[in-house]
Formats: sequence, C-alpha cells, structure tokens
Amino acid sequence: MRELTVDLGERSYPIYIGEGLLSEASSYFQRHGISKRSPLMIITNDEIAAHYLAPLQTELEAGGYRVHSAIIPAGENSKSLDMLGELVGEALEAGLDRKSAIVALGGGVVGDLAGFVAASYMRGIKFVQLPTTILAHDSSVGGKVAVNHPLAKNIIGAFHQPEFVLYDLYTLQTLPLREVKAGLSEVVKHGLIWDAEFVDWCEKHANDLLALSPDALGYALHKGCGVKAVVVSQDETEQGLRAILNLGHTIGHALEAVAGYNELLHGEAISIGMVGSARLAMKFGAPSQVYEQTKRTLAKLGLPVVLPEKYDVDKVMSAMMHDKKFAEGTMVFVLPTAIGKVEIRRDIPVDWVREVLEQLKLEDEQQ
Amino acid sequence: MRELTVDLGERSYPIYIGEGLLSEASSYFQRHGISKRSPLMIITNDEIAAHYLAPLQTELEAGGYRVHSAIIPAGENSKSLDMLGELVGEALEAGLDRKSAIVALGGGVVGDLAGFVAASYMRGIKFVQLPTTILAHDSSVGGKVAVNHPLAKNIIGAFHQPEFVLYDLYTLQTLPLREVKAGLSEVVKHGLIWDAEFVDWCEKHANDLLALSPDALGYALHKGCGVKAVVVSQDETEQGLRAILNLGHTIGHALEAVAGYNELLHGEAISIGMVGSARLAMKFGAPSQVYEQTKRTLAKLGLPVVLPEKYDVDKVMSAMMHDKKFAEGTMVFVLPTAIGKVEIRRDIPVDWVREVLEQLKLEDEQQ
Ligand SMILES: NC(=O)c1ccc[n+]([C@@H]2O[C@H](COP(=O)([O-])OP(=O)(O)OC[C@H]3O[C@@H](n4cnc5c(N)ncnc54)[C@H](O)[C@@H]3O)[C@@H](O)[C@H]2O)c1
Ligand SMILES: NC(=O)c1ccc[n+]([C@@H]2O[C@H](COP(=O)([O-])OP(=O)(O)OC[C@H]3O[C@@H](n4cnc5c(N)ncnc54)[C@H](O)[C@@H]3O)[C@@H](O)[C@H]2O)c1
Ligand SMILES: [Zn+2]
Ligand SMILES: [Zn+2]
Repeated sequence: MRELTVDLGERSYPIYIGEGLLSEASSYFQRHGISKRSPLMIITNDEIAAHYLAPLQTELEAGGYRVHSAIIPAGENSKSLDMLGELVGEALEAGLDRKSAIVALGGGVVGDLAGFVAASYMRGIKFVQLPTTILAHDSSVGGKVAVNHPLAKNIIGAFHQPEFVLYDLYTLQTLPLREVKAGLSEVVKHGLIWDAEFVDWCEKHANDLLALSPDALGYALHKGCGVKAVVVSQDETEQGLRAILNLGHTIGHALEAVAGYNELLHGEAISIGMVGSARLAMKFGAPSQVYEQTKRTLAKLGLPVVLPEKYDVDKVMSAMMHDKKFAEGTMVFVLPTAIGKVEIRRDIPVDWVREVLEQLKLEDEQQ
Repeated sequence: MRELTVDLGERSYPIYIGEGLLSEASSYFQRHGISKRSPLMIITNDEIAAHYLAPLQTELEAGGYRVHSAIIPAGENSKSLDMLGELVGEALEAGLDRKSAIVALGGGVVGDLAGFVAASYMRGIKFVQLPTTILAHDSSVGGKVAVNHPLAKNIIGAFHQPEFVLYDLYTLQTLPLREVKAGLSEVVKHGLIWDAEFVDWCEKHANDLLALSPDALGYALHKGCGVKAVVVSQDETEQGLRAILNLGHTIGHALEAVAGYNELLHGEAISIGMVGSARLAMKFGAPSQVYEQTKRTLAKLGLPVVLPEKYDVDKVMSAMMHDKKFAEGTMVFVLPTAIGKVEIRRDIPVDWVREVLEQLKLEDEQQ
C-alpha cells in the first residue's frame, strides 16, 4: 500500500493507493470520522456499478454505515446542472444531512459531479473519492469539482477537497485499454513538468503499465498524484504555478473542440498537444532530445503523437484563439525547456504555432 | 452615511448604508478593486429594473465599467438551478472572466441567486450586493447564498462573501408596504436576540419606520446588520451560535409550509413565530413583560401577532415535526429569556408547543 498527503493546511488529505482497498473501505471511513449516524450517498455510473457497487455497499453496510446509492448514465453528458438537481433530490429523499458524506465511485466524470453535489448540498458536506480510472489520479488531487454548461466545460463548480481518496488498483483491471492509455497520458505529463527520472521510468515500464501490472500502476499513480499534489499545494486556488499543469492542453483542448468531444479522448488530445509543445520549445532553443523523448514515451504507451491528416489546421488554430489564451498576435503556452522542466511563455508567435501543427500533420502523412 | 464591517478575517467586508449611494456606485467599485478590464454582470428582477437599473448602469459605465445586465422574473421561483444555468450562459456570452464581478441589485431572492452564480461561475468570482429591500439587511450579511430544489428551500448553495455591500436607502421608497413590514420583522428579531435598547427604539419609532424616514431606516438597518454581523463573525459556517438567528423560525417555517409559500410572507410568519416563542418562554419562567413587549412592538409595525383562525394547529404541528428539529417528544427552540437575550432549549415538550399555538389562535378569535 502506498500513501501520500495532499498538503493544504486545514484541508490536507491523504491518498491511499493499493490492491483491494475497497474491500476494507469501512475501516478507512471510520478512521476518517465519516459518521455512521447519518446516511451516505454513493454516486457512480452504470458501467462501474456493474462491477463494484454491490460489494462496496455490502462492505460499508457490514461496517455499520447506512448507504444510499445513485447511479448516473456513463459519459460526460452526466456532468450537468440537471443531474445535480436529480442527485440533490435523491440525497434529500435518502435523508442526507449536514453530517453525511457523498462518495464518488468512478472516474473524473463521477468525481467532478459528485464533488460538486458535496460542495453545494446544504452549502457543503463531506466528500470521499474512490477513483476507478487512471485519469482520476489527476482529478482526485486539487479539489476542483464542476459540472458543464452547454456553452463551456467545467464552468460551474467549486473548490471542495475530499476527506480522503481510496485508490483501489483492482478496479483498473476492467478499464477499457483506450481509457488506460488516455489516463497514462496525464501521468506522463506529470513527469514531463516536474520529474525527469520518472519520465525515464515511464518509458522503460510502458509495457508493464499497459499490461496493468499492479506494481507498475501503483508506482506510477503514486508519482503522478505526488507531482500534482506538490503543484496544487503551492497554489490551491489557481493563482499562478498551477498553470504548468496545462502542458499540452492549449493544443489539446483545441483538438477536442475540432474533433467533437467523443472522437478524441482528452488524454489522446493532450498527447498530441505535448508533442506539439515540445516541438514549439525547440524553436526557443530547447534540445531536440526533449521533443524526441516526449514523443517516444507517449508512443510506447500507444498514444497518438502526430496530428491525424483529417484535422484542418485552420480550424484547430481558430479553436485555439477562441480559447482566449491569445492576445495580439502572440499566444500563451507551457513549454518544456528540459525533460522534467517547463516554463510559461506569453510571447509565442501565432505563426510558429501554425508551423508546428503543419509539421505534426506532415508526420502523419510520412508514417 | 453609516458604515459597518462584517468581521470574517480575510473575508471581512464593509456595508455602507446611506441615501443616494447608487448614484456614486462606481467610486465604491473602484475603491474595492473591481476590475474595469473585465465585464461586470448586474443581476436584478423586472420590478427592480424598472426603477433602478438604467441609472445604475449609466453611472457604472460613466465610471469606465463594461456592464452587462441580466433581468430575471420577480419572485422566489427564480431561485432555481434552471435560472443558474441561464445566468451562467449570459455570463459566458457577455465574456465574464475570473476577474469579473457579479452584482446583485435587489432583495434576498436576487441576492441569494446572484451570490450562487458568483460562487460557482469559474469556481468563484467576485460578488457585490446592492440591497433594495429591508429584508436584505439580513440576507446581505453572512455569505449564505443558494437556490431552491423542488423538495427543499436553499438546499443547493455555498458560503460566498461579497466584496462590499452598498445599501441605498432611496431604493426603499418604492418597496411595497407589506414588504417593508415583513423586512422589519427580521430587524426586530435582531433586537430581540441581542439588544434590548434597540427593541425599545423600534417600539418608539415604529411610525417613522413605516413612514420610511431615511434617518430611522438607516439607524435600524445599521443596528440590524450589526447584530447579524457579530453573530456571523463568531460562527461563519454555522456550527453553533448562529442558531439564535432562528428565533421565531421554527413556528414561522411551519406556518409558511402550511399557508403555501405565497399567502404569508416570511417576515409575517416569523412575527407570529416570535410571539409564540415568547409565550413558550413564559412556561419556563420568562417574565410576561418579554411576551408583551415582543407582541406590542411587532403589532405597532403592522405585523401579525396572532395565529389566524383558518390555520389548522394539527397541520402546523406536523409541518414543524417534519422540520426535523424534533426528537422523541421534545423539540428544539430558540426562546427569549429577557428582551435582548435568548437561549436554545432542546427539551421543549411537544404538548407545550401545541398549547401555545392554540392560545395564539384563541387570541385571533378574541380580537
Ligand atoms: N477535477 C479535475 O481536476 C479534473 C482533472 C482532469 C479531468 N477531469 C475530468 O475528468 C473527466 C474524465 O475522467 P475519466 O477519463 O476518468 O472519465 P470517465 O469517468 O468518464 O471514465 C471513462 C470511461 O471509463 C468507464 N470506467 C471508469 N472506470 C471503470 C472501470 N474501473 N472499469 C470499467 N470501466 C470504467 C466509465 O464508465 C467511462 O465510460 C472529464 O470530465 C474531465 O473534465 C477533472
Ligand atoms: N442568504 C440569507 O442569509 C438569507 C436570509 C434571509 C432571507 N433570505 C432569502 O431572501 C429571500 C426573500 O428576500 P426579500 O424579502 O428581499 O424578497 P424579494 O427579493 O423577492 O423582494 C420582495 C419583493 O419586493 C420587490 N422589490 C424588491 N425591492 C424593491 C424596491 N426597491 N422597490 C420595489 N419593489 C421591490 C421584489 O421584486 C419582490 O417582488 C428568500 O428567498 C429568502 O430565502 C436569505
Ligand atoms: Zn487534462
Ligand atoms: Zn428569516
């Protein structure tokens, strides 16, 4: 079992990572002071419920907890105000009070939505995260919770830290391979912004990770959460440093917008984005080795590293400029200066970005 | 001009109370660091907009602010998740960013809703309150913001403190008399829980208050906000002391539920509730003078002080027990022990509460 602390003063909380942790969930709930007198509500989705809900509920009830569970449809569309309203209705009917906790069993969608339910129900009750995806190593650190609006993602939300996070590696065994890879993309990102040795490790252990070796996964998630935790604890409410977590995301978000939100997974889009940022960095003198290792590592994890031929560079550019990090002919980007080190530059010529996208696309043709 | 500070450490803020303050709004906005580079959004309702929106918008624009305004329908029904979604859409279209502020121009409905927009838009942006009702002296102190769910009032919300509150007494001149009285009910409540001299003052100046004398109103709102501010600053997130603010609310909420939410205004219901609490207190030995002065003061302000014949005592009792302050034959109540002093008792026999309600009803017949 691995453990780390997200250090946020009074709001600090631990993350436990290990095999089979859900089967001892009630002892963790107890240790963290989750009340048995008030009912809990587990929020999960239909796909995850099929595997993990019944045993978890049994375990918690055996531990003396009163448990209500709410099952939402899988998919990003559930992160909505309508779903918030429905879940608040279920919470009221189940009798949740100020001492109750909301428990998120799932990936980032369930976590973000359930977290916002917890943040706003009765103006804030306790929250516990039980992540079941690799991507959730990212979303379970930092306390950002939110739902989407038809006009913008994650625009309605709060900062609401969980009491603790219980990351059971067993749950990852059923995760679809494409979701595994997409989650690993953010793991690599955490290496690229902070920890060169860990990037080497990812490259060397790519196959173990893809084979879902619990040992490799445990190590990688611990490292990934650790980097995010350090960054977040230095900048809880996103005033500055936290921006480095956006490596690959300027191009990535634009690709997601152009592709339509279901064609490219978020982790796939930012994989291409990270390769693009490394290429852009070369124009500012970063060694080509940075670009090469970035690309090699992501490729070994089965992630896309070129811009697929079918995407129109003009459309990607205009989506990026919409994203508002754009001002007067220059753009803001997180750029790697070495493996494990990034800087934020506000002076990137728009033309250079276009050139990089065209190069990334050319590479698709050459493959 | 009167001024007071709501003392909440880093989240402290001032309340300015005076005549014509809205006509110098931009200097207050500037002094409190509201950015001119990012657009503002004023949220108000159709009734209030008719009187005060155009001049306010002109004043702010003259001061260099970019102002968008959103007008919601008057009434409690606007405090909904649907309206939150609409307002977030308007904010996005108007280009509000992290540095923008949401400005509430209105009473408690506009304040609670706009405050929750500010609390959740981009996970929290600045908030300014411009109250236009007397009741808002209560809702503008303490940072409680929320919307309703069909199953429960104020159940989805946050604690989000404003940057400052600008209370322009001129706006109260157009407030319907019934709303004036209902707002004064909470003013008297603040006296009853904390400040005997102020209760005497209210009794003596009841006519000035009803005549909307700016001087009397300014004094009363300053006192009322002051009491609430002291209580709230000792208990920001409602752990204990804040409960005394519920004087009259146990019976009051039950009456509102039985009456249907439009028949009795909140302030009217708690007026009856405060008289009931004082009568209940007599059973524990409180001097009859407490009951008499409570009743006399509220009556002078034109507020109801008896239980109208048409309300069924059984229904009121069962609404109260639903309200969950009920456990095993006893109930929790805030009771006055003297004018300006209350205690919280958890041992009120249910039968005594019923007796008090029946007495209050009898008094209606006798009138
Ligand atoms: N809060 C943050 O800081 C933060 C950070 C990054 C991403 N996010 C959010 O996270 C979301 C994406 O998260 P995600 O990738 O975990 O998506 P997800 O929660 O939708 O999970 C991806 C898919 O895998 C399925 N699944 C999850 N766990 C499974 C398991 N153990 N076995 C089988 N199937 C399983 C889900 O049903 C879903 O279909 C986005 O909404 C994004 O905005 C939030
Ligand atoms: N957040 C808190 O701490 C807190 C405390 C108490 C009450 N509240 C909330 O406050 C709300 C009630 O507030 P309210 O009584 O101010 O109601 P309100 O905002 O609905 O105003 C009452 C009526 O007066 C009209 N009005 C307001 N100002 C006017 C003016 N200057 N001239 C003419 N008409 C005017 C409104 O259009 C409305 O019809 C409730 O939703 C309640 O839950 C919140
Ligand atoms: Zn991401
Ligand atoms: Zn009240």
